[in-house]
Amino acid sequence: MLRLLATWGAGPVRSGLCHSCRQASDAPRNQPPSPDWVARPVGLCSMMRLPVQASPEGLDAAFVGVPLDIGTSNRPGARFGPRRIREESAMLRAANPSMGALPFQSLAVADLGDVNVNLYNLQDSCGRIREAYQKIVASGCVPLTLGGDHTITYPILQAMAEKHGPVGLLHVDAHTDTTDKALGEKLYHGTPFRRCVDEGLLDCERVVQIGIRGSAATLDPYRYNRSQGFRVVLAEDCWLKSLVPLMAEVRQQMGGKPLYISFDIDALDPAYAPGTGTPEIAGLTPSQALEIIRGCQGLNVVGGDLVEVSPQYDVSAGRTWWSWTG
Amino acid sequence: MLRLLATWGAGPVRSGLCHSCRQASDAPRNQPPSPDWVARPVGLCSMMRLPVQASPEGLDAAFVGVPLDIGTSNRPGARFGPRRIREESAMLRAANPSMGALPFQSLAVADLGDVNVNLYNLQDSCGRIREAYQKIVASGCVPLTLGGDHTITYPILQAMAEKHGPVGLLHVDAHTDTTDKALGEKLYHGTPFRRCVDEGLLDCERVVQIGIRGSAATLDPYRYNRSQGFRVVLAEDCWLKSLVPLMAEVRQQMGGKPLYISFDIDALDPAYAPGTGTPEIAGLTPSQALEIIRGCQGLNVVGGDLVEVSPQYDVSAGRTWWSWTG
Amino acid sequence: MLRLLATWGAGPVRSGLCHSCRQASDAPRNQPPSPDWVARPVGLCSMMRLPVQASPEGLDAAFVGVPLDIGTSNRPGARFGPRRIREESAMLRAANPSMGALPFQSLAVADLGDVNVNLYNLQDSCGRIREAYQKIVASGCVPLTLGGDHTITYPILQAMAEKHGPVGLLHVDAHTDTTDKALGEKLYHGTPFRRCVDEGLLDCERVVQIGIRGSAATLDPYRYNRSQGFRVVLAEDCWLKSLVPLMAEVRQQMGGKPLYISFDIDALDPAYAPGTGTPEIAGLTPSQALEIIRGCQGLNVVGGDLVEVSPQYDVSAGRTWWSWTG
Amino acid sequence: MLRLLATWGAGPVRSGLCHSCRQASDAPRNQPPSPDWVARPVGLCSMMRLPVQASPEGLDAAFVGVPLDIGTSNRPGARFGPRRIREESAMLRAANPSMGALPFQSLAVADLGDVNVNLYNLQDSCGRIREAYQKIVASGCVPLTLGGDHTITYPILQAMAEKHGPVGLLHVDAHTDTTDKALGEKLYHGTPFRRCVDEGLLDCERVVQIGIRGSAATLDPYRYNRSQGFRVVLAEDCWLKSLVPLMAEVRQQMGGKPLYISFDIDALDPAYAPGTGTPEIAGLTPSQALEIIRGCQGLNVVGGDLVEVSPQYDVSAGRTWWSWTG
Amino acid sequence: MLRLLATWGAGPVRSGLCHSCRQASDAPRNQPPSPDWVARPVGLCSMMRLPVQASPEGLDAAFVGVPLDIGTSNRPGARFGPRRIREESAMLRAANPSMGALPFQSLAVADLGDVNVNLYNLQDSCGRIREAYQKIVASGCVPLTLGGDHTITYPILQAMAEKHGPVGLLHVDAHTDTTDKALGEKLYHGTPFRRCVDEGLLDCERVVQIGIRGSAATLDPYRYNRSQGFRVVLAEDCWLKSLVPLMAEVRQQMGGKPLYISFDIDALDPAYAPGTGTPEIAGLTPSQALEIIRGCQGLNVVGGDLVEVSPQYDVSAGRTWWSWTG
Amino acid sequence: MLRLLATWGAGPVRSGLCHSCRQASDAPRNQPPSPDWVARPVGLCSMMRLPVQASPEGLDAAFVGVPLDIGTSNRPGARFGPRRIREESAMLRAANPSMGALPFQSLAVADLGDVNVNLYNLQDSCGRIREAYQKIVASGCVPLTLGGDHTITYPILQAMAEKHGPVGLLHVDAHTDTTDKALGEKLYHGTPFRRCVDEGLLDCERVVQIGIRGSAATLDPYRYNRSQGFRVVLAEDCWLKSLVPLMAEVRQQMGGKPLYISFDIDALDPAYAPGTGTPEIAGLTPSQALEIIRGCQGLNVVGGDLVEVSPQYDVSAGRTWWSWTG
Repeated sequence: MLRLLATWGAGPVRSGLCHSCRQASDAPRNQPPSPDWVARPVGLCSMMRLPVQASPEGLDAAFVGVPLDIGTSNRPGARFGPRRIREESAMLRAANPSMGALPFQSLAVADLGDVNVNLYNLQDSCGRIREAYQKIVASGCVPLTLGGDHTITYPILQAMAEKHGPVGLLHVDAHTDTTDKALGEKLYHGTPFRRCVDEGLLDCERVVQIGIRGSAATLDPYRYNRSQGFRVVLAEDCWLKSLVPLMAEVRQQMGGKPLYISFDIDALDPAYAPGTGTPEIAGLTPSQALEIIRGCQGLNVVGGDLVEVSPQYDVSAGRTWWSWTG
Repeated sequence: MLRLLATWGAGPVRSGLCHSCRQASDAPRNQPPSPDWVARPVGLCSMMRLPVQASPEGLDAAFVGVPLDIGTSNRPGARFGPRRIREESAMLRAANPSMGALPFQSLAVADLGDVNVNLYNLQDSCGRIREAYQKIVASGCVPLTLGGDHTITYPILQAMAEKHGPVGLLHVDAHTDTTDKALGEKLYHGTPFRRCVDEGLLDCERVVQIGIRGSAATLDPYRYNRSQGFRVVLAEDCWLKSLVPLMAEVRQQMGGKPLYISFDIDALDPAYAPGTGTPEIAGLTPSQALEIIRGCQGLNVVGGDLVEVSPQYDVSAGRTWWSWTG
Repeated sequence: MLRLLATWGAGPVRSGLCHSCRQASDAPRNQPPSPDWVARPVGLCSMMRLPVQASPEGLDAAFVGVPLDIGTSNRPGARFGPRRIREESAMLRAANPSMGALPFQSLAVADLGDVNVNLYNLQDSCGRIREAYQKIVASGCVPLTLGGDHTITYPILQAMAEKHGPVGLLHVDAHTDTTDKALGEKLYHGTPFRRCVDEGLLDCERVVQIGIRGSAATLDPYRYNRSQGFRVVLAEDCWLKSLVPLMAEVRQQMGGKPLYISFDIDALDPAYAPGTGTPEIAGLTPSQALEIIRGCQGLNVVGGDLVEVSPQYDVSAGRTWWSWTG
Repeated sequence: MLRLLATWGAGPVRSGLCHSCRQASDAPRNQPPSPDWVARPVGLCSMMRLPVQASPEGLDAAFVGVPLDIGTSNRPGARFGPRRIREESAMLRAANPSMGALPFQSLAVADLGDVNVNLYNLQDSCGRIREAYQKIVASGCVPLTLGGDHTITYPILQAMAEKHGPVGLLHVDAHTDTTDKALGEKLYHGTPFRRCVDEGLLDCERVVQIGIRGSAATLDPYRYNRSQGFRVVLAEDCWLKSLVPLMAEVRQQMGGKPLYISFDIDALDPAYAPGTGTPEIAGLTPSQALEIIRGCQGLNVVGGDLVEVSPQYDVSAGRTWWSWTG
Repeated sequence: MLRLLATWGAGPVRSGLCHSCRQASDAPRNQPPSPDWVARPVGLCSMMRLPVQASPEGLDAAFVGVPLDIGTSNRPGARFGPRRIREESAMLRAANPSMGALPFQSLAVADLGDVNVNLYNLQDSCGRIREAYQKIVASGCVPLTLGGDHTITYPILQAMAEKHGPVGLLHVDAHTDTTDKALGEKLYHGTPFRRCVDEGLLDCERVVQIGIRGSAATLDPYRYNRSQGFRVVLAEDCWLKSLVPLMAEVRQQMGGKPLYISFDIDALDPAYAPGTGTPEIAGLTPSQALEIIRGCQGLNVVGGDLVEVSPQYDVSAGRTWWSWTG
Repeated sequence: MLRLLATWGAGPVRSGLCHSCRQASDAPRNQPPSPDWVARPVGLCSMMRLPVQASPEGLDAAFVGVPLDIGTSNRPGARFGPRRIREESAMLRAANPSMGALPFQSLAVADLGDVNVNLYNLQDSCGRIREAYQKIVASGCVPLTLGGDHTITYPILQAMAEKHGPVGLLHVDAHTDTTDKALGEKLYHGTPFRRCVDEGLLDCERVVQIGIRGSAATLDPYRYNRSQGFRVVLAEDCWLKSLVPLMAEVRQQMGGKPLYISFDIDALDPAYAPGTGTPEIAGLTPSQALEIIRGCQGLNVVGGDLVEVSPQYDVSAGRTWWSWTG
C-alpha cells in the first residue's frame, strides 16, 4: 500500500471525461491520463484525473476530499483545498522513477469525491466525517484525504482506530496540535491529537512529529507530547540536513503495525507552500518532505492526509500538490 | 430550449460526487445541488455540479468545454476557462425567478466534459472540435460551450450548419472577429466569422453583433460586415441605455429559425470581466448582458458559447460565470 | 445621529499614536487626523484613526468590529473585514461637503475595538456579540459595526430590540437572508432576518430590502418576505436609475421611529466591491449606495453595520470602505 | 493637434525593434505596428511601439514619461506608470473609427523616453522636468506625458506658459489639487494647480475641473477654486449622464486659445482604474472619459498628460491605457 | 535587553482593545494576548497587540514605526511596512522555547506608534526621526524600529550615538548601503552607513555586514567598507552553512559595548521575503536569520530595526514578520 | 565570450532614452546605465537598458527576445517572458565582483529586439526563428536569448549547428525535453532536444542535463538520453550540495569546443522562480544556479538562452532575471 502513497504521481488511466481520448483499451486498471494523449487542461479535475466513483467497493485506495475550515484559528480558506489540490494534480504522471514504482498497475485507485461537511457546525461535521470514513475503511479501502483544516484528522482517526485499533502516527507539521482547548472549545485545528490521545486512538509509542517550530505559550511546550511517549523532532534540528537517517529510525520504530500519515502543509517553509493559514518561518524544504514520504516505503500505511492547503494565499499555485509526488 | 439558456442557474439535482447528500430520491431529472443540502465547496466541479456523462444520448442540452487558446493574439490563458467557469458555477441555484424558469424540471441536462484539443496545432484542434460536435448535434442535444478562445466557434458552427443549414447568429463581443488573416494565417481568434461566411455557415441576414468597439486598422472597419448583411451595434450606442428595445428588434429579426448565440466575455467592460485576453474599455454592463440573454426567450436556440474567459487575469474571481445567470 | 452615519469621512482629531503631530490643543472632540498634519501611512489603524477606548461611556456613537466569518456559505475571510476597513479608512477626512456635515464637531465618536468572538462555535459567538452590544446600547451609544459575515446582525438586533423595541430595518444586500435553515442549521449568514422575525425584533411594516438578485431555490423566493410586510426592491428595478425617489419613499415609511441600517457589501456589483464571499453580478453602483446612505438623513438611526467585507478577494484594495463616505 | 490627442490608438508604422517585420516600405510616417503583421507580444515597449528618438526635432507630438512618485500622499508606485502604460499600449491600432481619425497619417509622432528624475528630491525633480519640457516645447512639439504623480504637471505647465502664456486647463480628477500645503510642504501631488495660480500659469477663466468628489477638510472645499474663476464639475453631477452637453459648453469656453489637458486616472471610478494611489469611490465611467476626450476635438491642445497610474494596484492590467483611446 | 530582541514572540499581556477578553488580572506586565483567550483576528493591530502608549517613560523597550519610503531607489512601498508587520505579528505568542526566553515577564514593553514623517521631504523627515528617537533614548527605553526604507537608520543612529557614543553595528543586508551619493543626493537608502561613518557614529572596528551580494559599479565594491575596518561577510560565503560559528566570532568582537542591530529584509532570499523593493537572488535563509538573531544573546543591544518591508510585493503575506521570532 | 555570459549584471553605458543623463562622453562601449546617474524606473526597458539596434553587425554578443509560447503543455504565458526579463534587468549593474568581470569593457553588446514570431503556427514560427538566428550567427555575434517556451531552442540550435557543427550542450531544466511526440505532434516544448538529436545538431558526448526530476511515463525515463551519451544529473543528486565539483567535471568534458547553454527557469525550485508554466517541486536553488553559470568560465560559449519565464505567475516579480547575474 505504501508504494501508492510514496508514488502518487505515476501510469496510463481511463478517463471518461474527454472526447477523442485515444488510449489502449486493454488498460487493466484506473490510471491518470498521459499528457502524451490528453492535454493537461482537458477534463474535470478529479485527483490526478482518475475516475470518480461513489462507492469504495473494489478499491485498494481512494482519494477523498474534506472541504472544511471552520476549525481554523487564523486565516481561513482550506475548504477550497481539495478543489485546488485536484486541479494542480493534473501535472502528475503515472510512474515514479525515484521510487521505482508503478502504483496504478498493482492497485485499484479512484477519487470518491468529498464528504458533505456542515460548514456552520464543527461538532456535526466531525460526526459526518467519522461516519463517511467508517464506510470507506469497512470496505478495505485505504483513504488518502485532501483537507481541509487539521481538525478533520480527529474523526478520521476515530474511524481508523475502530478498524485497526490504536495506530502509529507520522505527523509532519509546524505545530504539535495537542492544545487542550482554545476560546473555550475542545475542538479546533490545534487540538486533534490531544483528543485522539484522550480517546486512546493512537499507539503513543509510535507517534513521531516532525517539523515543529514557532513561538509558544510556555517555555516547554512539548512536555505533554513527550510525556505521552511521542518523539518530537524540531524543525531547527532538521535545518540543512538530509532526513534519510531520521526516516530509517522511524521505519524501525513503526515496524509492521498500522501507521497513519498526517501531513500539514505548513510543515514546509512558507516560501515553498505559502497557501496555508498559520505559516511559520524556517520550516522544512520540499526535498526533506520527499525524503519523509519516500522513507515510509515498506511500512503498513492504513491511511494518510494532506491538510491545511488554503489556496487563495498561494497566488502562483503550481505548488500545493507537492507532497503527493514523493 | 431557450428557457434553459436564459435560466442557467435554477432547480434540484442529483450529485453522485458527495457523501451524505440527503436529497429527495424522486428527483426526476438532473439538477444542481441546493446549498441547503450540499455545502458549496463540496463536490467535483462539473458545470453547476450536474452529473458528468460521456455520451449526449438522451440529453436535451449539455455543457461542453473546449480548453483551447492557441488562437489568441494577446494574453493567453483561455485554456483554463472551462475549469474556472465550472468552479464558479457552484454558486448557481436551480430557479431563475426573473425569467420565471425552472429549466431542469423540463429538460435533461448534463456536463459532457471537454473536447481533447491539440494544444500545439490549431488546424488539428479545429478538426477535433468539429468531429466532437457533429456527434453531439447528431444526437439532438443542444451544446452549450465553455471556451476557450473564439477560434473554436468556427468548427462548432461547421457542425451546426451541417445539421441545421445556415444559422442565425447573435454575436456579443468587443470585436467583430471578421478579419481575413493575421501573421499570414487564416485561422485565429480574429477570423472565425469570416471563415463561417466563406463557407456559407451563417444566415447573414440574421447576424447581429453587439458591443463592438476599440481602435482599428482602418476608418471604416465594419464595411465588410455590413456588406454581408450583418447588423453591427456599437458599444457606444449602448452606453447608459437599456437593451430591451434592441432585443425586441432582434427577436423580430430572428423569427423561428435556428439561432446560435456566441458570447465573448470581452463584450463586457473589463471592470466587470477582467479575466480575458484582449480587453477593451467602455464596454457593456452585466445588466445589459442579462437583458441580451433574457431577450432571447422564445427563440429557436440551437447552441451557444461563452468564450475568451482567461481566469488568471481575474484575481478576485467570482465574476466569470456571469453570463450564465440570465 | 444620522448626520454621523451619512458623513463618515469628515474634521481635526487628536491622535495619541504618532509623534510630532502638531495639532491644535483646543480640539474639543475626537477627530480623524488631517493629512495636512499627519501623513496617511502614519499611526495605528483604528477606524478613521479615531481614539480607541474600552468603554462606550460618554460616546454618542462608536465603531465596533466583529471579526467573525464561520457563518459563511461560500468563500470565507470576512473575519479580516474590520481590520481592512479600518486600514482603508485612513483616506477619510472630517467634512462631508455633499451632505453639509461636520459630524465630529457635534458628536463624540471613538473606536471600541473588536468583540472577542469564538471562531469555532457560531452559537457561542452570537451570545458574546449580543452581550457586548447590550452594554454599548445601554450606555446610549449608537453602535456602527464593521463585520464580519451577516450572521452577526442577528445578535446585534437582539440587543437593539431589547432597548428600543422592534426596529425598522433598511437592508441593502444581494440576498434577502431570510432562509429558514441550511445544512440542518438555523444559524448562518443566510438566516439572520428570519430569526429576527421569529423573535419579533423587527417592525416588519418598516423593513425595506434593496439590491436583491440572483438565482434561487424556487420561482417565488420573495413570498416569505412580502408576506411579512417587507418591501423588496430588486436590483433589476434599480438598473440605470437614481435611487433618490426611492429613498424619499423610504423616509416617509420609516418616519421618526428607530431604524437600523444593515449594509451587506455584496449589494454592490462585484466590479466595485470584489472583496466579498458570495458575489452576484449586476448589482448596485457606488453612486446608488451613496444615494441610499445620504437618503437616510433626518431619520432616527439607532445603529448600522457594514458586513461581508472579505478583503483577500479585493487585491487592489482601496475600495472596501466605500459605504462610509456618503 | 487635437486629432492626435483624441485618436491615440489608430495606422501603419515602422518598427526597428523586431526581425521579420514585413511592412510596406513606403509608410511616410511613424506608425504603431499592425497586429496583422507584428504579433502583440513582439517588440520593446515604447508608447504604441512607436520609434524612440532622443530629440523632439521634426515631431508634431511626442510621448514623454515622467516616472516620479515622491509627491504621493497615500500609496506610492506611479514611478512605474510610464512603463506600464507603454506596455499596455501594444493593444492600440492606428485608426479611431469613432472619431474618423487617422492621426499618424498627418502628424509625426514618436516616443522621447523618460525625464531622468531625482527620486530623492522633489524640488530638484521639478527643475529637471521643467528644463526637459522647455526643450520639447521650444521645438514646436506637443508633449503628451505619461506620469508619474500629479506634482509633475506643475513644472510642465511652467514650460507651457513660458511658451504660450497662461493656458486654459481641462483638469479631470477626483481631487482639485489646489491645497496650499501639507506636512509643511508647498510641493506635493495635492498642490500643483495652487502653485500654477500663484505663478500666473493658468488662464483661470478657462479652467474646468471634472470628476471632483470625496471627503474634505471643510464644508466648502471648492471656494478657493471658484473664487479664482474655475468651473468645478462634481462627480455627483455626472452620475448616470452623458457628458456630451458639458463638453459642448467646454469647447465654447475654451475657444481657439491654448489648452492643456491634465487627466488624473483617479477621476475614474476605481472599479475601472484600480491602479492608482488615492482612489475615491463613485467616479466617472470610461464612456464618460471618452466623451470628455472626444469632446475636445477642434480645440487648440498644446499638451496633455495622464497621471497617477500606479500599476501594482491593477493586478489584472489591461485597463490603465484607457484614456488614450478616445 | 538582548533577551527581548532575541525572543520577540513570547508571554501573557493586557489588551484594552477587545471586549470579553478573559485574562488573569494579575498579569504584572504588558503581554501579547494568547490565542487561547483572544481570537487572532480580534483587536487593533499594534505590534504583537501590545498596549499602545504615547510616552516611552517606564518602558524597557518599545516598538516604533517609521513609515517612510522616499529614499527608495527602485520599488517604493515600505511606508506601509510598519502597518503590515504589526498585522502579521498577531501570530506571535509570548514564549520562545528555542531561546528559553519569556521576555515579557522581565521587561516592560509597549508599542509607541509611528513617527509622523514628512513624505515629501527626505531631509525634513530625517530631522523628525532623530528628534523622536532622542526622546525615546533619553528615557532609557530601547527602540525596536519597524521600517520604512533604510535611510531611517541614519537619523536613528544619530540619536543612539548622542546617548551611547559610537556604537557597534550588526548590519544584515544584501547591500552595504555605503554609497557616497546617487542622482546627486547624499541621502537615500543606499547611503546611511556612509553618512554614519562621516559623522563618527559607528565604532568601525565593531561593524559586521552579513548577506552582501549582487552586481556592482566596480570590481571591488567593498574596498571602502574594509578600509574603515568593517567585516564584510558575503552571502556566497554563507551558502549551505550554519551561521552559528560566525556569530560566535561576532559575539567575541562585539564584547560588552553598545551594539545596534539593523536588519534589512532583503538580506533574505526573495523566495522567503518577496515583500521588498530591491530584491537580490541567492540570499540568506530564514534559519540563518534566526541563527544571527539568536547569536546575539548576551550582547549589549541598545536598539534594532527591521527595514525595507514593502508589503504589496508579498501577496501571500504571513512572512514579513519573520525576523522577530528568533 | 563566457565572461559576458557569466557576468551579466556589471559597467557604464550610453542610454539615448532619458533626458538629463549625465554620463561620461568617453564611454567606449555600450553599458547599462548606473543607478548613480539614472534612476531605475527611468528609460525604456531594453535588456539592462542597453542600446537597441536592428543589426548584429559589430556586436560581440546580443540579447534577443523570442516571445513564443504555443508549444506549452500546461500554463501558457512565456510569450511575455522577454518583456518581463528586460523590465527586471533594470536592477543589474555593470560589474560582477564575484567573477572579477567587467564584460562591457571588452565586449560590444546590445539588445536586438524580438523575433516576430507567428503566434498561431508553431511550425512557421520555428522557421522564422531559425532564419533570424542564421543572420545573427553569420555576423559573428553570440546570441543570448530571452524566451519563450523551450520549443525555441530547437530552431536556434539549427542555426548554431549550421555555423559551428554539432555543439556541446549544458541543459539546466526540471525536464529532459526529449519526448518523441505528444498529442500527435513532433514539435512542442517537450521535444526540442529529441529533434536536435534526430538532426545531428548536438555533440552528444558533450551534453549534460542538470536538475531533472518529477513524475514520468515510465520507470526509466532517462534511458533514451543515456543511450545517446548524455549525462543526466538528477535534482535529487544536487540536494544540499555545492555544484562546484560537478562544474569542474563539466568544464573538463566540454573542453574548448563550442558549447550552447540552455537554461529553463523551471530547473529552479518554484519557491525561487514561480513564474513558469510546468513547475516541479524540490528543484535547484539560486546559489546552485549561480555555481552552474559561474562554472562555465573559460568555456567556448557560442550561445545561450533563458526560457520558460512566464511572468504572470510571479506576482511579486523581482525574481525572473536571476540567472543572468552569475
